[in-house]
Formats: sequence, structure tokens, C-alpha cells
Amino acid sequence: MKEKNFIIKGDICYSKSKDRLSCTEHGYLVCTEGTCRGVFEKVPEAYTGLPVEEYKNAMILPGLYDLHVHAPQYAYAGTGMDLELLEWLNTRTFPEEERYADLGYAQRAYTLFAEKLRESATARACIFATIHRKATEILMDELEKTGMKTMVGKVSMDRNASRGLLEAGPFQAAEEVCRWLEDISGKYKNVQPILTPRFVPSCTEKLLEELGKISRRKKLPVQSHLSENPSEIAWVKELCPWAGSYADVYQHFGLLGAEYAPAVMAHCVYSGESENERKLLKENQVYIAHCPQSNTDLSSGIAPVRKYLEEGMKIGLGTDIAGGHKMSVFQAMAEAIQVSKLRWRLTDSSLVPLKTEEAFYLGTRGGGSFFGKVGSFEPGYEFDVLIISEARLQTPAALTLKERLERIIYLSEDRDILRKYVAGERIF
Amino acid sequence: MKEKNFIIKGDICYSKSKDRLSCTEHGYLVCTEGTCRGVFEKVPEAYTGLPVEEYKNAMILPGLYDLHVHAPQYAYAGTGMDLELLEWLNTRTFPEEERYADLGYAQRAYTLFAEKLRESATARACIFATIHRKATEILMDELEKTGMKTMVGKVSMDRNASRGLLEAGPFQAAEEVCRWLEDISGKYKNVQPILTPRFVPSCTEKLLEELGKISRRKKLPVQSHLSENPSEIAWVKELCPWAGSYADVYQHFGLLGAEYAPAVMAHCVYSGESENERKLLKENQVYIAHCPQSNTDLSSGIAPVRKYLEEGMKIGLGTDIAGGHKMSVFQAMAEAIQVSKLRWRLTDSSLVPLKTEEAFYLGTRGGGSFFGKVGSFEPGYEFDVLIISEARLQTPAALTLKERLERIIYLSEDRDILRKYVAGERIF
Repeated sequence: MKEKNFIIKGDICYSKSKDRLSCTEHGYLVCTEGTCRGVFEKVPEAYTGLPVEEYKNAMILPGLYDLHVHAPQYAYAGTGMDLELLEWLNTRTFPEEERYADLGYAQRAYTLFAEKLRESATARACIFATIHRKATEILMDELEKTGMKTMVGKVSMDRNASRGLLEAGPFQAAEEVCRWLEDISGKYKNVQPILTPRFVPSCTEKLLEELGKISRRKKLPVQSHLSENPSEIAWVKELCPWAGSYADVYQHFGLLGAEYAPAVMAHCVYSGESENERKLLKENQVYIAHCPQSNTDLSSGIAPVRKYLEEGMKIGLGTDIAGGHKMSVFQAMAEAIQVSKLRWRLTDSSLVPLKTEEAFYLGTRGGGSFFGKVGSFEPGYEFDVLIISEARLQTPAALTLKERLERIIYLSEDRDILRKYVAGERIF
Repeated sequence: MKEKNFIIKGDICYSKSKDRLSCTEHGYLVCTEGTCRGVFEKVPEAYTGLPVEEYKNAMILPGLYDLHVHAPQYAYAGTGMDLELLEWLNTRTFPEEERYADLGYAQRAYTLFAEKLRESATARACIFATIHRKATEILMDELEKTGMKTMVGKVSMDRNASRGLLEAGPFQAAEEVCRWLEDISGKYKNVQPILTPRFVPSCTEKLLEELGKISRRKKLPVQSHLSENPSEIAWVKELCPWAGSYADVYQHFGLLGAEYAPAVMAHCVYSGESENERKLLKENQVYIAHCPQSNTDLSSGIAPVRKYLEEGMKIGLGTDIAGGHKMSVFQAMAEAIQVSKLRWRLTDSSLVPLKTEEAFYLGTRGGGSFFGKVGSFEPGYEFDVLIISEARLQTPAALTLKERLERIIYLSEDRDILRKYVAGERIF
């Protein structure tokens, strides 16, 4: 479907700012050339004549953005949930990721992953593959076909992993990244590469340095993990005693992003406890991928998102499959609110719980800005749109638009999505 | 469908004890006269000739048990989630419950509730209605038709409520309960009445005393709320300064159950902090309905379930719609594990997180025992069975039966339920 000039009519909600919703009943959302022209109470003269699709008993929302998800882990999501991070990596994750050396397995698993991501409310995502170059290219091929916009990283690891996931050394690992970038150069319209050191414990300093050079040379963005779990943080301190913080290791090697290519760091559960780290994240405009479900499932803790919002840090949501079990950014919104309440109740009543408006912001506009002008319906934004049926959520109660949005966040399932557009293209 | 003598073949899991699963691949689950005769690796001679239904790519599990759910709150589940308990009751819940004075509204809302409960994995449930006698009878009529086994309570309230929910006085309120019990006497096969003082703050001592008398006289079970939220607990202390604990108020009026009629108390988030309360709950074999989602959504806190299990207390799960947002006991299992991890990480590392086996026990056998011999596949148990399709959970990974169960707990949705039996009757 290529009708890039059209209007969608119905009940429309989007995020005006981090704590304000814009809600319009029976509104008109205008798209021309893949770009949003705004939400109107009646069709402006300039756009009369455009075809209008009307939806009733449904809500029209921006696409959702998943800043952190591991494609190879989808195959076993929801298992091994009785483990903590480092044990889970060694006993569950590394053995599973080794299987992607087998391209037949990779094809089966990544076809399934791409299909499930397509069916979800996610419009754009930052995705980890494994160390395997060819398997990563299979993943990119499959994602390209969906029409969604994604960033995919071949993972780099040259220490502290199982044998099957250990690259031969820092230079060989960096060389593999360069070969991968050559292989895919000019090949995709929808999928872009992102540099992906797994995390400090599995990358030698030399490898981090090489990746930093590639990032500068190719103007490539970076994704990794940061300050997720107390044992991991202690380990990083042991490995890099010279660093002012965990983030300082990435910073030292040029991996905290730059104007031309931002970095996104998953978790930051404990960045609230390090002034140095928070300062580096702010100065470098690093995106935090808050992954509440994963941080709960792996017993990592609860990130002080309220504090990050107050300090004006960049932040969005991640599902972190399979640290988290469910590939749903709506669910991530719900759990961001839920864990902020528990944090408030159990450990720190100075940080008030997140409100619906804030969680919705994180999953739309907040994370969306990593990909450019997306996640809002203001004029000039790329046209990423979800139409969510409320047929299954019928109720005799009289609800406001905000309450209907709340129910979609807490109760909708992928099957309720009637339509998904990314950059004006209809995905389904 | 009345075929009460039959065999189901497939992959079968149930709870042997609070921390042990029984898993049988390609097993035979035998039902005669609505009763389970056990799980076998091949059909015992006594049962050859019975019809065998085989299921592939599916798991065969016991029914789930919801020990705490408010039927009138289903209509607005997933809204108003930015409030704490007492504020939520006053601004959201009481105004909504007042609407059940209108029997047309009650009919619409309760028809929907009964249908959704029927479609869910829940086999049996303890259900709050509102103070309205006639509306409660509508709810019971609708539930009776589903074939599920439920206990339903007309709520009693004579203080600290909105005007529309305030009964005229303790004797009038008790009289309404008696009239309700007369109205429904002998009317239902599947639905039983349960006495339901809302909670101490909304019942005068005189009303509690009258309800205690009715419980003794009629040998009726009791359900209520206990130690959910710090402000609520402080309020109870103010209202009943003479009591040794919140539970002691119920105990004093004969509302903590007896041999012939047990009591179920929702929440008990803070019962770990009162020796007196825990002692009363143990002595009286009171069931705790652990409602992790509600306790998170209303910022109440996290119950020390590990401690309750270690002390041998009776405990099961509740969805607590609409304090909780999702009417799913699988979800309650997942969140019981999740919040136990956060409690361990944030406040008390002496209580290790719940394991999959334990959460599954709570949602099946643990809570099931409130209803009699249900929630297990051992011989002599009532035949409550779910058959869950795994078609939507396909994966190229090789998973054990336990891992497949874990995925069902974390990822299945109501639409994955192929069949549901309660006491040998097929619900769908």
C-alpha cells in the first residue's frame, strides 16, 4: 500500500510533552508524503480531497519505540526466569546465542522474530543480534521486509564469554565489524547498522578502542548495556579500576555517542548513584533504555526514572527480550509505572511514581526521538501510527479518552492492533 | 457436554507440593464421574475403553483459582491507576459501585464480567459484588450459567462510604444479608454465598458482630480485606484501638473462619510485621489471597510470601480487579515472582524470591484447597483442567516441560485456552 497522502479520522492521543497528553475526539490526522501534518478538529482546506479512513471504537496513537531488544533471545523468552543476570548469561543466554553459528537455525529464529516484531505495536527498534556476521545479515534481511525502521548490531565480544561466543581477539573482532559493514553497505532502506559492544565485561579495552574508532570514522551510533546489576558493576570496577564510573569506560573509548550518532545504553538502574556517570550521560546526550520488566525478571533493581526525567536526561523504554519476557512496549509502559510505585513505597519516597502521561511519553516521543522526528503527531513528524481496536475492551462504564488510553496501555494485546504505519508506509 | 468418563492425553503438569512439579510427557489423565483418577504413562486396565482425547502442541494443567476479585470493578479495570488505595476507593471505586443500584447497568456489566471470567483460565473464584442485594443476585445468575464454581458475596458496609453505598445501619445491613440468603436459598448448583464485610473501616463493630453471628448460624465462609496499605492499617488502629492487630478485629467478631467455613483475607501485605496477626491467621487457618498486581498498582507494597510459605500458612493468588488491572491468574503467578524479586533486591535479602514451582503452586493447589480437593491431578481431586495451546508460542529452541510451563505462565493469553473443565464439566 503506497497511499502516502491520506487522512485518518477518529479518537487521537499523543504526547505533547513529558507530562502532557493531547487528546482529540473525532479528530483528523493528516499524512502527506509520509509526514504528519497535524491533528485537526476539521479537515483544513489545503487537505480537502484527500481520502479519509474513519475508525470507531478504536484509538489512534503514535508508534511505539523499543530502545533495547535482543533478537536471538526471542526463541526462549519467558524461560530461565529464576536466575540473576550473570548466572542467566552463562547458563541460559550464551548457550542459546551460540546456536546462531548455524545459519539454518538463525533463519528459522529470525524469521519468527521479525514476524512477531511486525505484529507488535513497535514501530522502530534498536536490536542486538549475536557475534555472528552472517546470521546478523539474515536478521537484517528479515527486518527489511517488514517495512519497519530498525537499527541492528552485530555484537562484539572478545573476553569472558563461552568459547562459541568469543571472537579471536580485539583486532579480529573489529575487522569482523568492518566486513559486516561492507557486506551490508547500501543494501537496506529500512535497516541501519549500530555498533554493539555487548558490555564492558565481555570487551577488552583494545576492542572498545577499535569500536570507538569505527564509530568516529563511519559516524555510526552505539548501543550497549550500562549499570544494570550490582555484581556486574562491581566486576566492571575490577576490570577497569582507572575509570571514574562504568559509563566513563565507554566515554574513554569514544562510545558514548556524538552529535552525528547518539548512543543508547540499556538499563542504567544504578546510574542514580554515580554523579560522574550521570554527568557523562547528560553531557553526551546519551539515551537511557529503561527496561523495567527485565530489571525485575533478573532481580536487577529499579531505575530512578523520575530523577532522570527531572534532570532532563534522554530516556525511552526497552523490552529487553529475553531479560524481559514480553515483547510489548505497552507492557513496558505499564511496568515502568508499576516499578516506580514500588520504588517509591519501598526505598525512596522522594521520587514520586510515574504517571500514565509520563510512561506514554517514554514509550512514544521520549524513545522515538532517538530515531529522529518520530513519536508525535505534531506537524513535520514522520508518520508512525497505530490504530488500536477497543472491541475487546468493551465496557458499560463511561470513560474519558485518557482512561481509554490507560486501558490500552494496561490491557491491549497485539491482536488488537488494526493498522500500523511507519514513516507513512502501511505495515499491516 | 456431559461425558464425565474420559481420558485426556498429552503433556501434563501439576503441582505435587509447594516446591515440586509433576511433569509427564505423552501422559494420560483419567476422569470418571467428574473426579480425577490420576496421571498415567499408559492407560490402566480399569480404564481401557474410555474415550481418549489427544492434544499436541499444548499443555494440560489444573484449573487456576482466583481468591479475590471484585466483579463490579471489571468495567473500569486498567483506569485510575495513578492513585493510592484510599483515594482510589473514594474517587474511582465508590462512585462506580453506586451504579449497581441500577439493575439494567448491573445486568450489562455482570453479563460481561461472567463472560470474561468464563473465557479466562480461572476455574473457581471468590467474588465481591456490591452492597446491592438484587444486583448481587443478577451476578449469581450470570455466574451460575457459566458452569464454573464460584463464591459470591453481597458486600456489607455501614460507615465511611459514599452515601449511595452506605447501608442504613448495622441491623438493617445484617437483615439485608439474611434476605439475600433467603432469596437465593437452594437456587444455585455452582454458586455459593460468602459473607463479605468490605473491610474494617467500612463496617461498624455492631455490623461485624452481626455478620459473625450469621456466619456461625449458617456455617458460611467469610471474605474480606486485611493489612493492605499503611494508611488503611493506621486507620483501623484508630477505629479499633482495643485490638491486638487488624486481624484481631475480625477474630473478635468471629470472622476469621472456622473448621466448617474458612475465611479468606485479601492482601496481608503487612501481616509479616505483626506477630499477633500472623498467629491469628495461622491458628484459624485463614487463607491469604496474595494479589501482587493490585499491591503494585495501588502502591501498597509487597507481601512477604516467602515467609508465609515457610511458616506453613494457607495462601493462594487473587487478581483483585480493579486494584489489579488484568483478570489473569497466570499473570498473578508471574507478578508474584516478579515482586518477590524486587522485595529481595530492595528491602530484605533474607527472603529469597519465589520460584516458578512455587508461584504455580499458589495459583493452583495452594488457592484451590480453599474450594476443597481441587488444583491437583492426584486421584480423588475434582477434575478442573485447562488445555493450553502453544501454537502462538512456537519457537525453534528445544524446551523442557518446565520451560514450556514457564512460557505459558509468562506469555499465554486467554485466547490460547483450548478447553476448560470444572468438576468434570466442560466449560468450553
